[in-house]
Amino acid sequence: MSLSRITRSTVFCAAILTLGVSGYACAPSGKGASTTNLVAGDAASRVYVAPGSYDEYYSFLSGGFSGQVTVYGLPSGRLFKQIPVFSQFPQTGYGYSEETKAMLATTFGQVPWDDSHHTELSLTDGVPDGRWLFINANNTPRIARIDLKRFETVEILQIPNAAGGHASPFATPDTKYVVSATRFSVPIPQADVPIASYKQNFKGTLTFVTANQPGKMDVAFQIMMPGYDYDLGHAGKGPSDGWFFFTTYNSEQANTKLEVNASQADKDYIAAVNYRKAEQCIADGKAKKFGGSYVHNVVDPKTGVASSETKTGVTMLYPADCDGLVYYLPTPKSPHGVDIDPSGEYIVAGGKLATVIPVHSFTKMLKAIADKQFEKTIDGIPVLKYEAVIAGEVQKPGLGPLHTEFDGRGNAYTSMFISSEVVKWKLGTWEVLDRIPVYYSVGHIMIPGGDSRKPYGKYLLALDKITKDRYLPTGPEGSRSAQLIDISGDKMKMLLDFPTMGEPHYAQAVPASMLQPTSVKFEKLSENGNPFVTMAESDGGITRHGKRVDVKMIAIRSHFAPDILEGIQVGDTVYFHVTNIEQDWNIAHGFAVFGANNSGLTLPPGETRTLKWIPQAPAVYPFYCTDFCSALHQEMQGYVRVSPAGSNVALMANTSHTAQTAALGAEVKLNGAKHVVSATGLR
Amino acid sequence: MSLSRITRSTVFCAAILTLGVSGYACAPSGKGASTTNLVAGDAASRVYVAPGSYDEYYSFLSGGFSGQVTVYGLPSGRLFKQIPVFSQFPQTGYGYSEETKAMLATTFGQVPWDDSHHTELSLTDGVPDGRWLFINANNTPRIARIDLKRFETVEILQIPNAAGGHASPFATPDTKYVVSATRFSVPIPQADVPIASYKQNFKGTLTFVTANQPGKMDVAFQIMMPGYDYDLGHAGKGPSDGWFFFTTYNSEQANTKLEVNASQADKDYIAAVNYRKAEQCIADGKAKKFGGSYVHNVVDPKTGVASSETKTGVTMLYPADCDGLVYYLPTPKSPHGVDIDPSGEYIVAGGKLATVIPVHSFTKMLKAIADKQFEKTIDGIPVLKYEAVIAGEVQKPGLGPLHTEFDGRGNAYTSMFISSEVVKWKLGTWEVLDRIPVYYSVGHIMIPGGDSRKPYGKYLLALDKITKDRYLPTGPEGSRSAQLIDISGDKMKMLLDFPTMGEPHYAQAVPASMLQPTSVKFEKLSENGNPFVTMAESDGGITRHGKRVDVKMIAIRSHFAPDILEGIQVGDTVYFHVTNIEQDWNIAHGFAVFGANNSGLTLPPGETRTLKWIPQAPAVYPFYCTDFCSALHQEMQGYVRVSPAGSNVALMANTSHTAQTAALGAEVKLNGAKHVVSATGLR
Repeated sequence: MSLSRITRSTVFCAAILTLGVSGYACAPSGKGASTTNLVAGDAASRVYVAPGSYDEYYSFLSGGFSGQVTVYGLPSGRLFKQIPVFSQFPQTGYGYSEETKAMLATTFGQVPWDDSHHTELSLTDGVPDGRWLFINANNTPRIARIDLKRFETVEILQIPNAAGGHASPFATPDTKYVVSATRFSVPIPQADVPIASYKQNFKGTLTFVTANQPGKMDVAFQIMMPGYDYDLGHAGKGPSDGWFFFTTYNSEQANTKLEVNASQADKDYIAAVNYRKAEQCIADGKAKKFGGSYVHNVVDPKTGVASSETKTGVTMLYPADCDGLVYYLPTPKSPHGVDIDPSGEYIVAGGKLATVIPVHSFTKMLKAIADKQFEKTIDGIPVLKYEAVIAGEVQKPGLGPLHTEFDGRGNAYTSMFISSEVVKWKLGTWEVLDRIPVYYSVGHIMIPGGDSRKPYGKYLLALDKITKDRYLPTGPEGSRSAQLIDISGDKMKMLLDFPTMGEPHYAQAVPASMLQPTSVKFEKLSENGNPFVTMAESDGGITRHGKRVDVKMIAIRSHFAPDILEGIQVGDTVYFHVTNIEQDWNIAHGFAVFGANNSGLTLPPGETRTLKWIPQAPAVYPFYCTDFCSALHQEMQGYVRVSPAGSNVALMANTSHTAQTAALGAEVKLNGAKHVVSATGLR
Repeated sequence: MSLSRITRSTVFCAAILTLGVSGYACAPSGKGASTTNLVAGDAASRVYVAPGSYDEYYSFLSGGFSGQVTVYGLPSGRLFKQIPVFSQFPQTGYGYSEETKAMLATTFGQVPWDDSHHTELSLTDGVPDGRWLFINANNTPRIARIDLKRFETVEILQIPNAAGGHASPFATPDTKYVVSATRFSVPIPQADVPIASYKQNFKGTLTFVTANQPGKMDVAFQIMMPGYDYDLGHAGKGPSDGWFFFTTYNSEQANTKLEVNASQADKDYIAAVNYRKAEQCIADGKAKKFGGSYVHNVVDPKTGVASSETKTGVTMLYPADCDGLVYYLPTPKSPHGVDIDPSGEYIVAGGKLATVIPVHSFTKMLKAIADKQFEKTIDGIPVLKYEAVIAGEVQKPGLGPLHTEFDGRGNAYTSMFISSEVVKWKLGTWEVLDRIPVYYSVGHIMIPGGDSRKPYGKYLLALDKITKDRYLPTGPEGSRSAQLIDISGDKMKMLLDFPTMGEPHYAQAVPASMLQPTSVKFEKLSENGNPFVTMAESDGGITRHGKRVDVKMIAIRSHFAPDILEGIQVGDTVYFHVTNIEQDWNIAHGFAVFGANNSGLTLPPGETRTLKWIPQAPAVYPFYCTDFCSALHQEMQGYVRVSPAGSNVALMANTSHTAQTAALGAEVKLNGAKHVVSATGLR
């Protein structure tokens, strides 16, 4: 679609929508507008994945305010899975079961929700390698690792000395580090100070987290920065390998009504961080020990049980103490995205309020540093001269440039939030080549591998913030939306709209062939190391340790064993440890008990999951399989009898190992910790 | 696809999958098999909904173990929305916010999860009318009402004297009642009795709930039934209006390993309930007062705030006391679904283990009752003779018939779980007309309006329990799946596979035109009756009542007001009441505060939602908008200062109505209840 075909009203109405100017009637452009320049049949056949056939790409969309990750197939736009990460997920019991609840631990205690922003694939030599997916929590800053063999969250690291982990979890080309930067500056260390003392007391930090060993994420070091808002980041690559780039806004250091007060300066900054220099300064003893507590949650791959560890203290670098660590590149205006082209030479910024897309040159940056082309220095950080680092500006790109991705053929694509379009332009000449309207208010865009050294430049996904009239209405809360665009030719072609879960801030994607062969189909029962695994029907039973009762149970089509339990009393805490002993793909069971103040459990084949239950009254409580597993699924049920406290009803389970009461003083290992049986439970 | 085209290996492999016979290699039939008899381009164009165009139907799928309802467009299979019902939903704050958490209250306390099974549209004269959608909770029995103007859950009623609310919430043709029947029999009233005393002590109940007035659902009456498992139900219509039909299994009254012990009898029963007779018997004083506590949760339409009420006692009918109330129709074997054809004459049962599909005749049933063609009587319930009520049997339908829907053209469609197919057959002649394989293990099927008097017989949705190789793999936990089938011609045609959220037990659908015009786009601010609404920026502020602090705040592009708060102390409980004062479709905001042990909030336009926060340490905490709302969304933030307990930092908010401390003894109305301000908070 050529520029001339964009009507003024389309752009204007998108701007009206975005800026919220009231009293102006904009016709809904979605229904009436010609939104595609393919004939419908062509687009239909391009996105149709026939029953029994597979999609070409896995795509991973952040869930935004859902706190999760969603997995969509492309080009079909079908939602395969929601992976729980930072929020409770009643559907599977994530964040409720004994195996998973430690994943949501923080220094603030259990946090049931977060706002997940950016998915980031692990990289080898600057190219996605399909090992892990990282994602950040924005509200209570954390970084999670998802194992892409299992599509499960296996590790979460909290980020200390920070608030608002937005510029995160972008990775270095070898995944040595993933990063997190303060979106909101705060007193560091925290303190009860007047908010009006912002300029004196509020600081930001940039955090580098070691990421290349699963289960071992940790804060490598932090850099104490001026009290601005840090927004997004990307690592250098190729010639710029060893550098990391972060956008800032609010260099005005406003603390109220930032929409006005942080939009005063013509330019804010991109912070260019030489992290190899950071390593050198630390080795040279130029870093300081600094406080700060943070929690690290890891799923033990042997037991499948998550546990938490609280750590204290970090290595802090101050730019003034480490010459050459950080430089500021002036960048118009309140920049949001910062994206590095596949060659590693160009640093593209999306200035929300800028009228151009500025592109910095890494080569010029190095020369400007060598030539000391500094405007000034802020807290030990030299500010380079704009003219000394700028490679070019894309003129008249549209309104509100945010994010740029690359197709590997020398082209860049930038999302224009206010004018609701994606603009294609040429690296080096900076000329606009094509533009396509999107509906509405596009944020991030994603080309599979489009932020890496080797993009797969076939599709572009536009991640839209507002849908209004694009789908059948569903009441006051509508969905956000994605739009699939064909970028294989000279002109962009709109293929498909599909709604998303939560808000997709960013996405990553890889060819199906990268993940499909290694996807785990089920857990081998013989390798199930859960401390309460039940390997065979005859091994189930019930054990009392004081007021703690552990039930070990198997699930198999179509029964539980044991399925009759007696001798539990009001005042007991009961742990149902249920093992699905099936050894076949997709043969899942589930477990729930009547009246429990807890989520049910899903039970993938070969796995053990544990439901904690505190019965409140004498009664007979049914339990059942919650996952339709076989022709006799409805028959898969059992009963637990609960008697009054002090009752003499005998402890009983109808399996060959029936019931036992653990000896006082016996040692029990639970969730990685040793306990001793006492009369009142475990100590 | 004709019967001859079903290969033995397809049926056999599906059976292998379903029954879990191990040691047998079944080639994945999905990838290789020809799963469609349309050319791909034809199917593609049939399901493709071009960007900017709308789907033909809204479909509502139960979420099964997710506890929610999902809204998909047909024919595109796109997921528009997940409506939270019985489970916490961190994405919006449902079950976490002060406005919504009462919705999850039960007599067991707050229950964060349930297993939602069957969606049911409200009916007028036996036809879906688009007012409400009902859905049941299976684990802790409840029925929810969803308002289809808002696509929001507005009412939940707990079902007392029951366990496992599975045969629910099917409606009478005028929606006077929705029903719930005990899936699991239990002691009624509950008691601490041996599980082995099942036959003596365990009973079932059938519950009729008044449903036609929003906010006023209540238990109209219950019927005490023999201790079987009650599985599914459907109301009569036309000539059979006034009757309700429920399937039973486990008439063997087994209490362990039901897969074997409840599969002994050749026939179980359909219970035919004359509910007009029930009303008459109650009027005649033949019912008994009975105990049982239950909770009723309702969203006040004026305030938008949910509150809970606990009720005690029900009206109980015993079949022996009310002649003609219930009859049992013998039905082979362990029947699951019971479905009434559009004419109201035929009662079709799906016997999981039956080799035929039995169809009872309502006319013959009435005659058999008149002629007293009884086999025997169980607890006052006459058992009619099979031969006296059977209209016909569909011979050789396949393996494992479960559910039947109708196309309004005299045809019935039955899901065959074990042989993984949908079978089309003719009402009256009982001949099989067509069959189509589905992948895999189909449970419910749904034709829009297909269980009503007027089906829209264009599409059929097969709701499959197992997906295995149908999509790109996503680790040990895979999705369930739906398959869209064209039933407009003589032969069924497979159009599309799409994955689902949770497990879709049943679904309902209506033409888009029924709901689209009345869908609420946003709340009128002038009609927002939340007790803590803030109508204008100048009205925000902060008020201390002892240790309770209420913050009233507005959100508008792109700031909160107030956005600076001080004078809060450790030990306080802070309520952030945030009103989105936008008055435009889809202009949402969100709210979160750093470190909160709570979910964030989504804020649709015109609405007020409240986040409870207990700060733990002196610090400055940022808060921000979690929903990308404008070009300056990233600037939409604020700070709360928390001081130590007893600090003399003044209470402050940077709005014109700054801060106040409520007078002791003042009366405050919160969440529908009156409170008095005391020195330590509200009493």
